[in-house]
This record gives sequence, structure tokens and C-alpha cells, in this order.
Amino acid sequence: TKLQDPLEPGREIASQRLTWNKSPKSVLVIIKIRDASLLQPFKALCAYLMEENNMIVYVEKKVLEDPAIVNYENFGTMKKKFCTFREDYNDISNQIDFIICLGGDGTLLYASSLFQGSVPPVMAFHLGSLGFLTPFNFENFQSQVTQVIEGNAAIVLRSRLKVKVVKEFREKKAMLQNGIEENGVLPTGLKESNRLMMHYQVLNEVVIDRGPSSYLSNIDVYLDGHLITTVQGDGVIVSTPTGSTAYAAAAGASMIHPNVPAIMITPICPHSLSFRPIVVPASAELKITLSPEARNTAWVSFDGRRRQEICHGDSISITTSCYPLPSICFRDPVSDWFESLAKCLHWNVRKKQNHFTKEEEEF
Amino acid sequence: TKLQDPLEPGREIASQRLTWNKSPKSVLVIIKIRDASLLQPFKALCAYLMEENNMIVYVEKKVLEDPAIVNYENFGTMKKKFCTFREDYNDISNQIDFIICLGGDGTLLYASSLFQGSVPPVMAFHLGSLGFLTPFNFENFQSQVTQVIEGNAAIVLRSRLKVKVVKEFREKKAMLQNGIEENGVLPTGLKESNRLMMHYQVLNEVVIDRGPSSYLSNIDVYLDGHLITTVQGDGVIVSTPTGSTAYAAAAGASMIHPNVPAIMITPICPHSLSFRPIVVPASAELKITLSPEARNTAWVSFDGRRRQEICHGDSISITTSCYPLPSICFRDPVSDWFESLAKCLHWNVRKKQNHFTKEEEEF
Amino acid sequence: TKLQDPLEPGREIASQRLTWNKSPKSVLVIIKIRDASLLQPFKALCAYLMEENNMIVYVEKKVLEDPAIVNYENFGTMKKKFCTFREDYNDISNQIDFIICLGGDGTLLYASSLFQGSVPPVMAFHLGSLGFLTPFNFENFQSQVTQVIEGNAAIVLRSRLKVKVVKEFREKKAMLQNGIEENGVLPTGLKESNRLMMHYQVLNEVVIDRGPSSYLSNIDVYLDGHLITTVQGDGVIVSTPTGSTAYAAAAGASMIHPNVPAIMITPICPHSLSFRPIVVPASAELKITLSPEARNTAWVSFDGRRRQEICHGDSISITTSCYPLPSICFRDPVSDWFESLAKCLHWNVRKKQNHFTKEEEEF
Amino acid sequence: TKLQDPLEPGREIASQRLTWNKSPKSVLVIIKIRDASLLQPFKALCAYLMEENNMIVYVEKKVLEDPAIVNYENFGTMKKKFCTFREDYNDISNQIDFIICLGGDGTLLYASSLFQGSVPPVMAFHLGSLGFLTPFNFENFQSQVTQVIEGNAAIVLRSRLKVKVVKEFREKKAMLQNGIEENGVLPTGLKESNRLMMHYQVLNEVVIDRGPSSYLSNIDVYLDGHLITTVQGDGVIVSTPTGSTAYAAAAGASMIHPNVPAIMITPICPHSLSFRPIVVPASAELKITLSPEARNTAWVSFDGRRRQEICHGDSISITTSCYPLPSICFRDPVSDWFESLAKCLHWNVRKKQNHFTKEEEEF
Repeated sequence: TKLQDPLEPGREIASQRLTWNKSPKSVLVIIKIRDASLLQPFKALCAYLMEENNMIVYVEKKVLEDPAIVNYENFGTMKKKFCTFREDYNDISNQIDFIICLGGDGTLLYASSLFQGSVPPVMAFHLGSLGFLTPFNFENFQSQVTQVIEGNAAIVLRSRLKVKVVKEFREKKAMLQNGIEENGVLPTGLKESNRLMMHYQVLNEVVIDRGPSSYLSNIDVYLDGHLITTVQGDGVIVSTPTGSTAYAAAAGASMIHPNVPAIMITPICPHSLSFRPIVVPASAELKITLSPEARNTAWVSFDGRRRQEICHGDSISITTSCYPLPSICFRDPVSDWFESLAKCLHWNVRKKQNHFTKEEEEF
Repeated sequence: TKLQDPLEPGREIASQRLTWNKSPKSVLVIIKIRDASLLQPFKALCAYLMEENNMIVYVEKKVLEDPAIVNYENFGTMKKKFCTFREDYNDISNQIDFIICLGGDGTLLYASSLFQGSVPPVMAFHLGSLGFLTPFNFENFQSQVTQVIEGNAAIVLRSRLKVKVVKEFREKKAMLQNGIEENGVLPTGLKESNRLMMHYQVLNEVVIDRGPSSYLSNIDVYLDGHLITTVQGDGVIVSTPTGSTAYAAAAGASMIHPNVPAIMITPICPHSLSFRPIVVPASAELKITLSPEARNTAWVSFDGRRRQEICHGDSISITTSCYPLPSICFRDPVSDWFESLAKCLHWNVRKKQNHFTKEEEEF
Repeated sequence: TKLQDPLEPGREIASQRLTWNKSPKSVLVIIKIRDASLLQPFKALCAYLMEENNMIVYVEKKVLEDPAIVNYENFGTMKKKFCTFREDYNDISNQIDFIICLGGDGTLLYASSLFQGSVPPVMAFHLGSLGFLTPFNFENFQSQVTQVIEGNAAIVLRSRLKVKVVKEFREKKAMLQNGIEENGVLPTGLKESNRLMMHYQVLNEVVIDRGPSSYLSNIDVYLDGHLITTVQGDGVIVSTPTGSTAYAAAAGASMIHPNVPAIMITPICPHSLSFRPIVVPASAELKITLSPEARNTAWVSFDGRRRQEICHGDSISITTSCYPLPSICFRDPVSDWFESLAKCLHWNVRKKQNHFTKEEEEF
Repeated sequence: TKLQDPLEPGREIASQRLTWNKSPKSVLVIIKIRDASLLQPFKALCAYLMEENNMIVYVEKKVLEDPAIVNYENFGTMKKKFCTFREDYNDISNQIDFIICLGGDGTLLYASSLFQGSVPPVMAFHLGSLGFLTPFNFENFQSQVTQVIEGNAAIVLRSRLKVKVVKEFREKKAMLQNGIEENGVLPTGLKESNRLMMHYQVLNEVVIDRGPSSYLSNIDVYLDGHLITTVQGDGVIVSTPTGSTAYAAAAGASMIHPNVPAIMITPICPHSLSFRPIVVPASAELKITLSPEARNTAWVSFDGRRRQEICHGDSISITTSCYPLPSICFRDPVSDWFESLAKCLHWNVRKKQNHFTKEEEEF
């Protein structure tokens, strides 16, 4: 019940389409909690999935514990039919045929974080305005969900970054205090002799910044074992093409279509006029450490989550993950992307007029 | 019948207001020729000025020779009442109390070029969409013109650049061929021993570029006698604050309010990652020449006009003119500028949403 | 014993020179503490000032308490001759004829913070490499100090920003915890009915950012009472021209010569492709608040110091201070600035070659 | 005697190495003509190839006709041993085992233009300073050439763009006058009913600009059949990753490693604050035309050559070529690229110091 094996990235990907070996049966629905405006769409969607399509609907336990939902009378008996699970406790990665997100780009980042291995296809609805990651609008959701169930949809395989953080063991206690062990267990950490390793799958970007320090960061970046540069500034963003339209765009990067197999390295407010963002092959192996001369620590976060301190001796290794996120297109990978560039970022919005240069013949 | 002496630029200028010593009597009206859509507004404006306000209206002779106007029946006897003149033949600079422009930013640049000395206040109407230099819209033009005649208006003194081009005399013949002597006389040139000097007043910018050459330009920039840098690239823009929102903005400059006494130097596609635009005091004296190692000539233009070649031995000297252009505000210098930034350049147009970073508490 | 009254900013300032009404007698020496490499230069300088020039030397008490200095035998009896004071306890602003800084741009920012009113002229030595604010090198310091004492020096009047922070009184307790009351007294705060006001003089910039929050900041910027824009992103920098080459340059701003009377507004990683930095007149009155829709607080700092939280209801008002900092030039305001652009920021560093475009005639 | 079939771009390319099926026998040597400083290296190189390695050396006929070479006594009998050809007359594409360039990035662009189909591996020496395309320095050229002959070298497959220009037939006469038919024959043009088609292989970029017009260009860009945007400004650059460090970098693009399979679209001085460069998959099919509302023609050039006018009705189609240029590495694709970024573009050149932010604890 899974997608075909990912094709080689780069070539022919525009023609990738969703293919079901057998009909999908189970859907994970992700919504932002504590947002009353989502209750009605959530209920309508689940009713459609369970009652009209006879599907098994998974939701996170905390969704059903949300007081707004607990007290939402209209839910009736439907509540009992959900399959529930808890993040970090239950591994549902083999039980889900596809995912539906309701709410905003954040829901997709969250969905990505739930699947550290292969990810089922994701259909993402924006409930407010169009997002880069949420191409579907909720009007006529029934026909659109039906199209997906029937396999009539293009997909774009969004590459993810596989990140390994290695920390000296002496840091473990501090890490726990820093809130990494958020839900009572070490998330994906592995105690290994005197080191602690953690792994993350990242859809948008890894950000390494100076945190609360008012000193410039001093960060060394290695590519395939070569020290390629030292970042002095507010920090550095290592992003996927998907992430190139997120924080990296704010930091001045060019925007990369998600079908380009590449990794983008973008400085944040660099202390250097000549530090332009660069794009390296998806096959690159990056490693990031504090520079030996750094006087302060740095902080790292993964799609804006799991923020933690990086000290001398620690390292962050980044490669392209072999588990991309298959994102279901509203139209196709090209139309959806340019639509989002226009609507979300107002890319090249213009008045069609000549204010910049004038010619004398005009008079 | 002129404006008060300009105040010192920089301070207190926000409170500058139009002041008439005696009632204005003569108006220069500038329109783009060969644009049929302007005929009706032009006629209505002139009728209002001549008939309701008993004013003398100046227009350029070529406006009345425009076939569209010649054949425009409705003009009736009004045509005979105009005072006419020819650019480069007749000096009307002492006969005009104020100027009205109809049409687009280009009309204001043209008005500026007509006054090489002091400039009467300019009221500029946009007939299409708002421009940086044309803040008035034509609806209710009567009441707005009346406000100006009565002195109820704020003005912004837009600094201009005074440019002196010195060319080796051997070039004279080539210059004539290059169309500098456009109307049969050398415009403001002065033959001086073996040199030819020309003077220009510039409202937006002086552009020095590589012209049709496919080599990079190689241009030396001097400030107060010091060689400050060599431009290698497509060229360089020396602009007023008014020009900072025109071509300089396209080349990446920060935008400067017209009340800041400054000159902006902006490279065009520089062959250097670290060549950022700079802003120097209005009192700076700039000089621009070809670099000794330049293999090709460069080309210079002034507000997009009078384009000409610059060779080894020639020089371009630029200072802030002592004749700014008093531009009548629609509201006030601050509101008008930010209104234009928003409407013309879509400055900081945003969707009020959080696409760039996300926090885990959201879920 | 003070500088002449500041001339009008903008005009004629390039010719400003240091002028003593009577010979200077007292010098404040500022050094970075806990830096052993400064001890020898510090001692040589003080000996030259006290013994050769018979001047009174002021140093901060904590400098003489620095263990490195306490234990530095060579200081001998000189130690007893210093006049000492404590920041926030003793007001020495009327007792100092000029200031000498040893060490780095930070020493000058610190000197600025000591003088909330008028500032004596500052002579700043870099001991490592050239800084924007530290033009003198320490070799031959004797002759250079003598030149200054004799009045043979140009000065540049660096404008400062006067910042007023108004906080709701309920916040006072939290502020104390946030370390604002750093030295045991409320620095320049004024309890006023139910509000707390603080004033700061800023040489480089005021930074308002999102602090430790991973949400975008949402900051409203008013100019002369108009809401001009809302900043959504990492934050916003309001800087002097002096500050335009500091953090604002890292955030992408054009660079402004310190003699331009202006204020620069630069977004930090804005969530908008079209949010370009702008330059407004020095006479502008800015006010900054949280946007009503902001979900998180913001943080503000002043030349990198006095970092504090900004909540709904608080405001930050910024104008150009009437107390600029007179900075003594090594050569003159133009040469010094371009020297620093080249040495500190590698502005337009190039290889003089043609890599970008090629012409067929070359072959 | 040719390279292995190119691997799929994107993956595994870092490990691509030069492989000879049988020993290389014929070398094409390309030098810039009329440059006396190249004569000695050229002679030494050819002697080494012919006499020490018994290879057949091809040079263009015009090289041997260069007066400097004609009169260069030291050439002796070697001159007679060259195989010569004329560009556009003789097709040598199947006779060359590898190419050696002496002189500058332009020599490689020229070499690329000679091979409209598959290209032999290119070894490029810089004789002045390092270029992006010329990684080898000429000292010890013997051992370096020997390494290449022996197959001890990494290669990077630089993608090229295949460009098809379709012009209305009425334009043919004008084209001839515009110098397209440079050597007496229509270069690669094909008369087809009432249209004229030309094909080009481009290594760096296709530039479409406004040419001598002072109006803004108005250019429509289509991707896979969708109109994605209209360029209003000085023009637009469509470049390979190789070209991203050339003119596109000057126009503000992020820099892309040549191993990323992508096409970059970069506006030149766009009349829009929000027109950021974008990166699309190598598989994209682009088409460029004048906008219907364009009032002027545009001009196109290919790696800076073959400049020609584009009128209403003409079109430029661009795809990734199936004939990349195999460029022999000095070290490896990663080291060579970062070395060039540092040496040619001074990428992230810094002083390792803290000028931007300061903390109070420093004092």
C-alpha cells in the first residue's frame, strides 16, 4: 500500500504520479490543536473518510484530548472510531496509507517529523491562504480526496535532510534541562560510550545560530571533508529546495524548485559583504562544528523544533535523506510552485509601467 | 512671484510650504505628445486655468503642432491664447510661476530638463497609476489646482545633480554625429580652447554604462579628489534621493527619502560580490573617468536622455545642484513617499502569516 | 575647553576641525579589561599623558581593579595618580576634555554609553586591525596624541540616536529581573505615574528582534505619527549612518557616510521579498511598538547592550540626538571612511580581470 | 577514444574520473590570438605534445596566421606539423581526443562553441590568475599533461544549454546585417519555409536584454508551456550552474555547483523589488518571447557571442543539452569550485573579528 520506489531525483520527476498497489485504507489526519476554526472542517473531513469511504482514521491522542474537541457535541459517536497514538511512544509508520493535513505549513512540518523513515503521501489543505506546502483548498474537499484515493494525482518528492548530531556525553544532563527530552524519553538519541547521537529528518532547514548570545557566531562548515568556509554572523541555514522558499528566502537566498536535487547553504546576516548563498549537489556530505576560536556556543534547530545548544566538540552531520516526503500536488509540480511563489511571496509582483527609465522621444 | 529661498536641506524641510509673494499668473503645462487619452484632460485643465482663473498658459510649440491637437475640434479659440516656446530656443525660465505636468514620471523629468537654473514649483498629475513623481490624481483637479494657487500646499525640494562633462575637442565631430546637438545647436556646450564642456541638471540619475560593448566597463570614481573605487561591471549609477527609487532601486540600492541631503552611488551588475551601494553627503564632489586600463569606451546618460560616449581623457563631474526642483505634495513629504513606495514598488507587501518558522507548541 | 558648537549637519562638515578654547588638561582613557595585550600600550600611553604632557588621566575604577593591572609591577607609583570613577555612580561628563580609546570598536560604543549628554572628542586606537570607529594605529602614538592636543585634527560628528523606552509599570519587577538594573540602580529610568521611562544614547543602532521566540516578530513602525510598515521577520534595525556599516550592513543595507544626516531602517530576514532598507531624514521621529496581532513579545538592545523585553503597550521612540559623538579623524572624514570600507568590509575587492563577459574578437 | 557515457547527472558525479578506452592521440590547442605573452607557453606546450608524446596537435588556422606567430622564429619546423582547420568550415569534432586551453575563461567558452555535439574533455590552463573554468596553472605543465594522458584525473561534466532561436523569415536580411552571418555562411541556421532556426550550445548563459533601447525590456518567460513571469527591467539571464558564477552572480544570483542538475533564471536590474532569481530542474523546457505589450525589441547573446535582435513573433527555446562539456579537474570538483569561489570572487573573505555586535561584559 505504499508509493512506488522513488525515481531518481532530477530527471522525469515532473511526470511522477501517485500509484496505489491496493486501495488505501488508513489515513492519518493532522490538525493544529486549540484552533476552534478547524473543528468543523475536521469533523466534516473525518465523517467523509469514515462514513463515505469506510477508511480508518488515525489522529494523535492529544487531538482528542483537546478541550475544544472534548466539548464539541457534534462529534457524537465518531470519536470512538478513531485510532489514536502518541508521538514518541507509538510507531505508526507502517500503518498509514496516506496523510491529510489541515491548517498551515506547520502541519506538514509536523507530519514530516513523525516519520523518521519512509513517509506516506501527504495531501495538505490550507484553511486560510495558500501555503507553499499546503496547495489544496478545503472547498470541495470531497471530490479532491476522492481523486487522491483513486490515484488521480501528481506528486512531488520533497527531499529531506538527514541530520546526525553528535554531542559529548558530559552534555547529557544539560540537554535534558534544555528540553530535548521533551516527552520523558530521549527522542531518538543513542548513548554510545561517551557520546550521545541524535538523528532528525528535516523538510525545510537546519538552522545554526548564535542563540541568546550577542557575540557573532563562529561556525565551521565542511563539505565532503573539506573546510569550505567559516560563518561569522547571526548563523547559517542548511536547507532543502523546499526550505529555500522559507527562512532561507528571508535571509536572501535564490529560490529552488523542489525537484532540483540540491542542498542550499545560506548565511544569516553574515559579517561579510561577499558571503552569498550557495547551492551544492544533493549528494554532498556536510558537517558543521563550532570554530576552534568561537567564544560562545551555538544553537541548532530542525524545522524550527528541538532547539538545542552546540558546544566545542559537538558536530552536526547533514546529508540528503533517502526518505523524501511525497507531497500530493493540487495541479502539478510546476504550476503549484509558481502559484505559491506568486501568492505567498508576491514574487515579481509589478505594475506594468515604465517608472525606471525614460526616453526623450516620449515628448 | 517665486518660492522663498530654499531652506538648508536636511533640517526643518518637512514643514516647507508653498508661499506666493504675489498671486501666480503664468503656468507651464507639460504633456506627453501623441497620446490621445491626454487630450480631454489637457483641454479641461487649460480651460480651467485660462477661463476660470484668468491665467497665462505656456505650452511647448510642438504640443500645439501635434496632429492630434491640431485636429481636435473642441479646442476652438482656446488654441490662440496659449503662449508657446521651443526647447533650446526660447528661455522661459523667468516667466513661469508654476508648472503642471500631465502624464507620468517622464513629464517631470522633462520639466526638470527645461530649467537649467531655478525651477518653479511643479504640480504633477498621474493619469494612469500613481508615480513617485506624480502624486496628484486628476479627479477633482479643479479644487486641487485652486489649493495650489492659494498657496495651501506642502512642497518637497528634490535635490538635483549638476553635471559637467568635459570632452577632448577631437571628439566634437563625433559628438555631433552621436546626436548630442539634437536641435541644431550645441545645447549647453561651451567651446573652450581645445575642450568642449557641457552642463546638465539631473533629477533622477546619471548612468555610466558599457553601452553596446560586451566587455565589462572599467570606470574610476573619485570623491573630493580621492580615487575611491573602480567599477568593473555593467556600469554605475549616480543618483539623487529622488532617483534612489528609480533605476538605482532596480540595481539593488536602499531607498532614500528625497529630504535626505545625499548622493547615492550604485554599481550595475558589478563583477564583485562585495560592491554594495553607498550613500555620501550632498556636499561631495564626484568625478568619473574611464580607468586607464579600460579597453572600451563608456556611455553616459542624464535622466535617460542625451546619451553620449565617454572616451579616455573625458571626465564627468557631479555635485549637488544649487537649483533643486520644488515638487508640490499631494499630502506631505512623508505620506506621499510611503504611499508611492507601497503603490509603485509594492514595498513590504506581505501576507500576514507565519510561513517561515514554526514552533512545536503549535501542535 | 569643549568643541565649537556643532555646525549644521550635512553641509560644510567635511571641513570641521578640532578647536580648543584652552589647552586640554584631562583625558579619559578607555580600555577593554582582562586583555593582557593591552597592558603595555596602556601604561606607555598613560605615562606619556601624565609625565610628558602633565595631563590628568581618568580611568574607570574597574580598570584599576583588574587583577592583571593590580599585579602588573611596572605600573609603579603611576597607579596612584589616576582619577577614577564608576559607571552609573559618578558623572564625569563635565570634567573630561577628550577621550582616548584603546582596543576595538567596542571601546568607542562603550565611551558613547558613558556620555548621555554632550560627548568630548574621541581619539580611538585599534590595537589589532583597523576598525570603522578606531582609525588610529598605536605606532607613533606620541606624535599623534600631540597633534590632537595641539588641535591639528579633523573631526567627524557622528550622529547618535536618542531613544526613549516607555514601559507599562506592571513590568517594573520583570525588568529588574531581566537585568536592566544592572548596577544596583535604575540606570536612567524615571518612574512616572504608572509608567517607566528609560533613555538611551545610541551610536550604532537600536535592534528590535524576536529574542528567543521561534515565532516571527510582528513590529509596527511609525514615522512622524504615520504607521509606515509592519515588520514580520527576525526583527528590525534602526541605525545611524555610523551603524550602517555594522549590523545593518550584515542585514543587507547600503552603506551611508557618517556625515549624511539620516536614519536607516533595515529589516532583519524579513518575511517579504520586497522589504528593502530605507533611509529617512535625520529629523524623522520614529516610534516602534508590538503589532496588535503579535503573539509574542520582542526584545530591544542599544548598541548591543541593555537588552530587554518589549510587551504589548510598551513603545520605543527614536529621534536623532542633539548630542553627536565627535570622532577624531586619522586623516579626514572621506579618506578614513573609504579606508575602513576597504580594510574592514573588503568593499569592492576585485581581481582586475574579465571573467564575466567575453567577446568573440578575443580569439 | 572517448569518455565513458555520462552518468546520470546529480548522483555519484563527484566520483567521475577520466577514462580512456585507448591512448589519446590528437589534441586541440586553443589560445587567445594577438597575445604575445602566450607565445612561449604555446610553443613549449606544443613541443611537449608533439615531440615528447608524439601527439597530433590541432590549431585553428587563424592562430598560425597571427603575425606574432608568423614572425616567431623559434617555431622552426614545428609549424608544419600542425593540423589546422577553420571555424564554421571544418568539422573536427570526431578527430579530437582532448582539448587544451591556454589563457582565460574565454578560451573555454570558445572551445565549447566549436563543439555543437559531444565535446572531448578539456584541460584548461590559466596563464594569469585562476579562473572558474581554468583550474590548471602552467608551471609543471608537463607532469600535469602526462597525468591527463595517463587518465589520472577527475572530471566535472558541465551541463550546457541547447538553445533554439526561431525567427520570422522577414528578418533574414536584417540578421545578415546584424553580423550573425559572421564568416560568410549562415552558422547553424536552417531555412524552413518562412522561418529561420538557429541552434546554439551554451556553457555559461543566454542573455536577453534591452540592447541599445532606453526603454525597459518586456520579456515573457514560459516553463513547460506555462507563462511563469514577465521580466520588466534590463533583461534576464538563463544560465547553467557553471554560468551562475559569471554574469548571473553579478546580477545577484546564488552560486550553484556545476554538479547540480539545474537551470538558473536571473533578472537583470528588474523593475520589481520582489523579483528574486530562481533555480528550476535541468529537465525544464523554457521559452522566451517578447511580451505582446513590448514597445521595443530585445537582444540575445550566447556566452557573450552571436548577439542578435529578437522581434515580435520570434522565440528562444532553451533546454539542458545532452552534450555537457567534460572539464578536467585540477584536484576534484569540490576543491576546485571552492578554490575558485575564494580566488575569483573572494567569496566570504573576512577579517576574523567582531565589528558588528559587542557585549557589555567586554568592558
